Amino acid sequence: MTNSAHTSDACVDLDRRRRCGFPEVVFGEGKTTESIIEIFGRQTDHGEDCFATRLSAEQAAGILERFPSAIHNTLARTVRLHNGSESALRGEVAVITAGTSDRPVAEESLETLRWMNCETTLVADVGVAGPHRLTEQRDDFTNADAVVVVAGMEGALPSVVGGWVNCPVIAVPTSIGYGASFGGVAALLGMLNSCASNVTVVNIDAGFKGGYVAGLIARQARKGKEPKSEGGNRRVQTGIP
Amino acid sequence: MTNSAHTSDACVDLDRRRRCGFPEVVFGEGKTTESIIEIFGRQTDHGEDCFATRLSAEQAAGILERFPSAIHNTLARTVRLHNGSESALRGEVAVITAGTSDRPVAEESLETLRWMNCETTLVADVGVAGPHRLTEQRDDFTNADAVVVVAGMEGALPSVVGGWVNCPVIAVPTSIGYGASFGGVAALLGMLNSCASNVTVVNIDAGFKGGYVAGLIARQARKGKEPKSEGGNRRVQTGIP
Amino acid sequence: MTNSAHTSDACVDLDRRRRCGFPEVVFGEGKTTESIIEIFGRQTDHGEDCFATRLSAEQAAGILERFPSAIHNTLARTVRLHNGSESALRGEVAVITAGTSDRPVAEESLETLRWMNCETTLVADVGVAGPHRLTEQRDDFTNADAVVVVAGMEGALPSVVGGWVNCPVIAVPTSIGYGASFGGVAALLGMLNSCASNVTVVNIDAGFKGGYVAGLIARQARKGKEPKSEGGNRRVQTGIP
Amino acid sequence: MTNSAHTSDACVDLDRRRRCGFPEVVFGEGKTTESIIEIFGRQTDHGEDCFATRLSAEQAAGILERFPSAIHNTLARTVRLHNGSESALRGEVAVITAGTSDRPVAEESLETLRWMNCETTLVADVGVAGPHRLTEQRDDFTNADAVVVVAGMEGALPSVVGGWVNCPVIAVPTSIGYGASFGGVAALLGMLNSCASNVTVVNIDAGFKGGYVAGLIARQARKGKEPKSEGGNRRVQTGIP
Amino acid sequence: MTNSAHTSDACVDLDRRRRCGFPEVVFGEGKTTESIIEIFGRQTDHGEDCFATRLSAEQAAGILERFPSAIHNTLARTVRLHNGSESALRGEVAVITAGTSDRPVAEESLETLRWMNCETTLVADVGVAGPHRLTEQRDDFTNADAVVVVAGMEGALPSVVGGWVNCPVIAVPTSIGYGASFGGVAALLGMLNSCASNVTVVNIDAGFKGGYVAGLIARQARKGKEPKSEGGNRRVQTGIP
Amino acid sequence: MTNSAHTSDACVDLDRRRRCGFPEVVFGEGKTTESIIEIFGRQTDHGEDCFATRLSAEQAAGILERFPSAIHNTLARTVRLHNGSESALRGEVAVITAGTSDRPVAEESLETLRWMNCETTLVADVGVAGPHRLTEQRDDFTNADAVVVVAGMEGALPSVVGGWVNCPVIAVPTSIGYGASFGGVAALLGMLNSCASNVTVVNIDAGFKGGYVAGLIARQARKGKEPKSEGGNRRVQTGIP
Amino acid sequence: MTNSAHTSDACVDLDRRRRCGFPEVVFGEGKTTESIIEIFGRQTDHGEDCFATRLSAEQAAGILERFPSAIHNTLARTVRLHNGSESALRGEVAVITAGTSDRPVAEESLETLRWMNCETTLVADVGVAGPHRLTEQRDDFTNADAVVVVAGMEGALPSVVGGWVNCPVIAVPTSIGYGASFGGVAALLGMLNSCASNVTVVNIDAGFKGGYVAGLIARQARKGKEPKSEGGNRRVQTGIP
Amino acid sequence: MTNSAHTSDACVDLDRRRRCGFPEVVFGEGKTTESIIEIFGRQTDHGEDCFATRLSAEQAAGILERFPSAIHNTLARTVRLHNGSESALRGEVAVITAGTSDRPVAEESLETLRWMNCETTLVADVGVAGPHRLTEQRDDFTNADAVVVVAGMEGALPSVVGGWVNCPVIAVPTSIGYGASFGGVAALLGMLNSCASNVTVVNIDAGFKGGYVAGLIARQARKGKEPKSEGGNRRVQTGIP
Repeated sequence: MTNSAHTSDACVDLDRRRRCGFPEVVFGEGKTTESIIEIFGRQTDHGEDCFATRLSAEQAAGILERFPSAIHNTLARTVRLHNGSESALRGEVAVITAGTSDRPVAEESLETLRWMNCETTLVADVGVAGPHRLTEQRDDFTNADAVVVVAGMEGALPSVVGGWVNCPVIAVPTSIGYGASFGGVAALLGMLNSCASNVTVVNIDAGFKGGYVAGLIARQARKGKEPKSEGGNRRVQTGIP
Repeated sequence: MTNSAHTSDACVDLDRRRRCGFPEVVFGEGKTTESIIEIFGRQTDHGEDCFATRLSAEQAAGILERFPSAIHNTLARTVRLHNGSESALRGEVAVITAGTSDRPVAEESLETLRWMNCETTLVADVGVAGPHRLTEQRDDFTNADAVVVVAGMEGALPSVVGGWVNCPVIAVPTSIGYGASFGGVAALLGMLNSCASNVTVVNIDAGFKGGYVAGLIARQARKGKEPKSEGGNRRVQTGIP
Repeated sequence: MTNSAHTSDACVDLDRRRRCGFPEVVFGEGKTTESIIEIFGRQTDHGEDCFATRLSAEQAAGILERFPSAIHNTLARTVRLHNGSESALRGEVAVITAGTSDRPVAEESLETLRWMNCETTLVADVGVAGPHRLTEQRDDFTNADAVVVVAGMEGALPSVVGGWVNCPVIAVPTSIGYGASFGGVAALLGMLNSCASNVTVVNIDAGFKGGYVAGLIARQARKGKEPKSEGGNRRVQTGIP
Repeated sequence: MTNSAHTSDACVDLDRRRRCGFPEVVFGEGKTTESIIEIFGRQTDHGEDCFATRLSAEQAAGILERFPSAIHNTLARTVRLHNGSESALRGEVAVITAGTSDRPVAEESLETLRWMNCETTLVADVGVAGPHRLTEQRDDFTNADAVVVVAGMEGALPSVVGGWVNCPVIAVPTSIGYGASFGGVAALLGMLNSCASNVTVVNIDAGFKGGYVAGLIARQARKGKEPKSEGGNRRVQTGIP
Repeated sequence: MTNSAHTSDACVDLDRRRRCGFPEVVFGEGKTTESIIEIFGRQTDHGEDCFATRLSAEQAAGILERFPSAIHNTLARTVRLHNGSESALRGEVAVITAGTSDRPVAEESLETLRWMNCETTLVADVGVAGPHRLTEQRDDFTNADAVVVVAGMEGALPSVVGGWVNCPVIAVPTSIGYGASFGGVAALLGMLNSCASNVTVVNIDAGFKGGYVAGLIARQARKGKEPKSEGGNRRVQTGIP
Repeated sequence: MTNSAHTSDACVDLDRRRRCGFPEVVFGEGKTTESIIEIFGRQTDHGEDCFATRLSAEQAAGILERFPSAIHNTLARTVRLHNGSESALRGEVAVITAGTSDRPVAEESLETLRWMNCETTLVADVGVAGPHRLTEQRDDFTNADAVVVVAGMEGALPSVVGGWVNCPVIAVPTSIGYGASFGGVAALLGMLNSCASNVTVVNIDAGFKGGYVAGLIARQARKGKEPKSEGGNRRVQTGIP
Repeated sequence: MTNSAHTSDACVDLDRRRRCGFPEVVFGEGKTTESIIEIFGRQTDHGEDCFATRLSAEQAAGILERFPSAIHNTLARTVRLHNGSESALRGEVAVITAGTSDRPVAEESLETLRWMNCETTLVADVGVAGPHRLTEQRDDFTNADAVVVVAGMEGALPSVVGGWVNCPVIAVPTSIGYGASFGGVAALLGMLNSCASNVTVVNIDAGFKGGYVAGLIARQARKGKEPKSEGGNRRVQTGIP
Repeated sequence: MTNSAHTSDACVDLDRRRRCGFPEVVFGEGKTTESIIEIFGRQTDHGEDCFATRLSAEQAAGILERFPSAIHNTLARTVRLHNGSESALRGEVAVITAGTSDRPVAEESLETLRWMNCETTLVADVGVAGPHRLTEQRDDFTNADAVVVVAGMEGALPSVVGGWVNCPVIAVPTSIGYGASFGGVAALLGMLNSCASNVTVVNIDAGFKGGYVAGLIARQARKGKEPKSEGGNRRVQTGIP
């Protein structure tokens, strides 16, 4: 017997939760809606929470039609479906953005963290050119278990945030910018060369991965502690229908 | 009164431990031995553990002459000096290398973790072209709080390790390789594009940063638990005089 | 007398089969449907099997109208036309993909191999982040004469496959990915730097070339042996109308 | 009659001061000491102040032997020779560095400004990972006519400085860093993409050009004002023999 | 109390004028028209002049409907709104273009300078391949306080202009060109390597930043002088409705 | 009096023919049809032959309506208008293409040569993978005064042609290809590194420049000889309406 | 029991021959001579033929002292040691070079093939700029089972060779060249974009891998045939002491 | 009988002069002195003029010892040997340099032209930042049959020269510069994107190729004319022993 389930054209890794802590996540680009629904169906049969990213409006609509209780975030382009596998909140992560255009990537991180039952805080639009803005909101993120910093252009914000916190900072470069930003390369290089020791980096626009790693860290920080049971997503109304 | 101490040509951040959890680390390249000794002196006066990386043999000798109890790792090119600020072990990190040439970078990670009082395990020379090697040693790393994977050439090892563990994987690309490895760029890109969700990346040859972030994660994982008091560096005799 | 036949705007190399073993293949991009039909006509007159790649739906429809017995693979975007020049199967090639999005490139390889009368096996969706998946299906490819591995993102799969087989592995990087995948460059570099000695590489998305070289190798492996006469394409229903 | 003077193998532009405000500067790399001395001689004959950059120790020694009153800055690798063409100070420029390794490039900027008779302030070692350091020394640069910011690695400092001042910021990326800093490219891209509107950029390690443009701006800011007559280089003893 | 005003999804820096000399400028790309109108409204309440760049025709129309006295430059894709905070002209800047295709970027610079109440001159279409054209119009720019040079392709014009003036030259590379111009990279590199000492560089197509820095320099050049009160934009009818 | 004529938004260089041998050529991209017509009008008034490249179908139609005797090449996307300034043929140039997709760039070269009154020969579709094809047609190009070789993908053809002729070879890389052709960069680099001594290179897809330089060389080769008076464009019917 | 043997600092894959057909090969760079000798010793104990590449003169001398019957190729920088595991020749491979500077890489391929007991032919110095040279020696390679083509600069030779043979061509780009050859990148890109269908590519200067894959193909071509027993390396005296 | 002569490790193309107009030239890098002497010997036997480039001082000394009448240019690093195959001067080429550091590359061009019996003029050190310098010496190059322009840094000089002449301009980028000059890439890109229609480009530092193509053009320009018989290299004493 194997732990892989073959759908019509994909091979679902149903052993992933045991091995890696969380079920497989569906990368929507290039998949048919039917194929995503089939994967969600199999995961639901196993009592797993489902999550899909990079969805078109059509794909999302198709999934919601089949799973009406699923939650679609239009900015993040994600759908998540909670099948009760876990409900208590575990860990606290702050997501910080440099500019308003970085918001969709930040939302992908936030949705990932919600799917992981992690408590989240959003600190938006505090790019380095207005240095007082970050300082004013410092209390909102200095006690987090992990911080995700989402920034395009020169990607300097993670370095500055890194200097204020004692937890890991996951830097997510975005493709926001023009000219010599080269679709996010300038931000990526800036973050890889960060002089702050606690900064690690994921791929350009990789909101999912940024959120996922932060969620893993936060979950570890709460090992052996009582999870919170009440809700916990602050200042994040936009983008959720 | 400020929290910055000015040495002859550097400005030491003595507030760093309060703000970020650990004292400032000295990047040795381009600094004079005198300057590094002065920084170590000030940190010692504050009761902080000292750590310097990227040292030449001459720099290291100069430091050891002044601080005979300091530990020099010749492979890692580091010197650390424990001033008793902390002694109990906190957290467990596995450091995994793809090939023998990746060892110096791995040693920099290991020394960083030792300076942070973190328990370490080294799993060496288990690159993907000999797939059974990693599987045989899986027990050595699947229970770690964080894993550092050090690899050059195509940089595929973090993806494979990422599929076996449920903790964050910090991928450290190395400049090992030739031709189209472009001094580590191929490995860096491979790691940034890893299909494993738990992989984040640091700069090429950034053994210090890889170890530091893993240490922060491991420390968080042990918040509120009893620290171990006995020693804990397995299979790591090489390179320490 | 020359061995080149000039169509209205192309010069067909009718000597190719004698010199290189197989007739010229039509790269459809930028050619008119009429021009492709003219080339197929001339090759048919010479009793050659015809093959065209990178076809739009319109081009394919035009060709099928003129040659109703031709086979159109919509995923692969190819049309092939067998004129009976050869029918016995020669050689066995496995085509392995990392993810579902790599399928169209894999189909181009498969169609190329079918045009070459090579027996094929498809092993799909066995990327490195689910390490057990490849192992479970190992029997399907370890006895092949050559293996084609199609992968995007970090392109790590050829290295892992290379460690399990004793035949050449043709690695085909795909443009699947985003951000720092740079349209397939990350996968290409990963494959060029593969630590597995039996891995060679072709251009990004070059499904045709990957299949062609594998087919040449497989054909050589069967020199002086009895060709199989029965059919031989396993698990490959999708994509063929 | 022409305005160009031909030395043995160079063509000196003696009209430069009239056209561009300052005499031609000698880029020392690849020139013989004799050739530089000949240029200095001709400029001295015209009553011009002389300045040479990128000098080896040997070149500098040769020039000083011939012009004993010239000033050699060993860190900056420059020699300047004042022939009294101007002595009153004009304009104020702050030069800010991120780390101690950026100092030689900063010294090249400072020497350029001294040759231009500009008042200078050095604010050293205030990189973004220790955010309080810059703030503590803000009074030293907020009233300057122009600011030169010298930084390697991620090159984030100009953006942060740019948010605190109302004058132009000339960002000078340095080649300090390793791995994905690509010899200063990461810093260069970061600075070109700065979200601060008042930041412009010069070439990697171009301390001379950074200082020169800042000096031009400062000089303009003092048009029609009384120049200061007293000395004016603060906190800058290092590096001048 | 803070100096940041939060609109529905942006955080406006109302302290910017005090700190940096000019109010915040709205980068239109990726913002909703409502959001821009809200920012303009808040700035108008503070008596600040408003300016938005990179606007679509729809965004501009929406803003004009709400602020009928605003000025829309269709070539520059900007809208500015003067709320009387300043009306006397300060400083003189020449904007020079290499070819007709560089005009939209030049217009963005010009509109920025008008918003800053700076006197402007446009010298258009004087690329280096027709060397006499620049010389013929030299009187139009040699007395400016700063010069903005806008050029694509090989980006050689700033070097040539730099040889004729004694003020700073702000070089703005454009994405005009094809093939190995790589979307402006060739021009950017040419400008960064300019042999003229007075040339600094901004991002590709960064007309706003080029104009802004030139405006800051020009304003400084007029410190303590009487500002001109009459109009001052020469030869610039095109593009303003 | 100047030699520049200002149209509404362009500055025509009417002195170009005296200085450089041929009138200015209009690069159509980004220009209005009216503007091009105005330039053609002024050149016609001066008795100059007109030529415009990179035209859209709309631009071309507009020009033809105003100048009915102008010749539009739809493949080349050019329009030329002969005003009788010269009619005798001068010089012979061969244009050679590697594949059918390179034809539009070759046509741009051919039209440029026709505008220069140069005799032309087209040798099409003789890429290096069919080595006998070039050899068969060698007589068609070995006596030319200059050869233009147009090739995409690996760009190897100029090296091979260069080995057969004793005149200069102008290599024009095209953007034909996919994946690691990087829009013509592979061909460009191949040509720049050609081991054939007589090969020089122009920009990617620069059919005009390739033809222009070849035309200049051919014209020089005929200095002091009798020009031919009869027609002279061989095998080039396609693409001219 | 495992199939990995741990030497002091390396982990030897003794199962490799069973799995992949040939024993592990030692990449000498960065290994101590002792470590290489230890690996050779273990392999010799298992009756395996040994092979090491990228050796310094010192490493090679150390190995020869311990294993006097080993064969050192100074050009190739390799040492091989035959322990009689196989002696009959299997398969025929031609190695072709473009220029004399490509010889060391070609020698690495040849030595690899000799270690694999493959018959080899060297065709040297037949670059494309002297087109008749390749043609004259065509008989030497058209009957090979596989061809390795080693070329730097523009890397055009594999495309031309590919057009003459019906077996796979393994293209090995070399770092020979200057300027825009970018250390072999131009040749690498040229080969990846080869218009010849039978060309695959390995890393820059990867003589070992080029030879290894060719050897695998040749061995397959001889499956079920009688191996030759007599010697078989033609025209290759140079470089072997 | 073949037209290739095999020396010990090179294959000399003795048919080159008939096919391409000039004998083969020896690229010295990586060749032994003996090998070069052998080639010169064979060419001398055929009455051909010999030329070798990129020679070390040792190689040059070795050649001169054997051929005492050969001419060594130490700046150019070339040796040429005239065997009387041709003595009358044919064609006139101007070689123009931007800065003194570009001289060695220019000398390689000049020596190539002398070997081709071409009349040469050197116009040195006339870079664009001193615009009057080029204009003052315009008479020295406007009547040449071809112009070679050698420039590093931003590489703007060919565009400016191109605007003054009616003959082809061969642009040779040099690796002179630092930082973002990327070893000559900035100059190369600038030249490829030149807005002057008569500019073609060769590889970085390719003084030989630049001179060779200019020489071919000049020779064509003199077809059917009387060659000059008197000497003809102006202002070029430096560098020839």
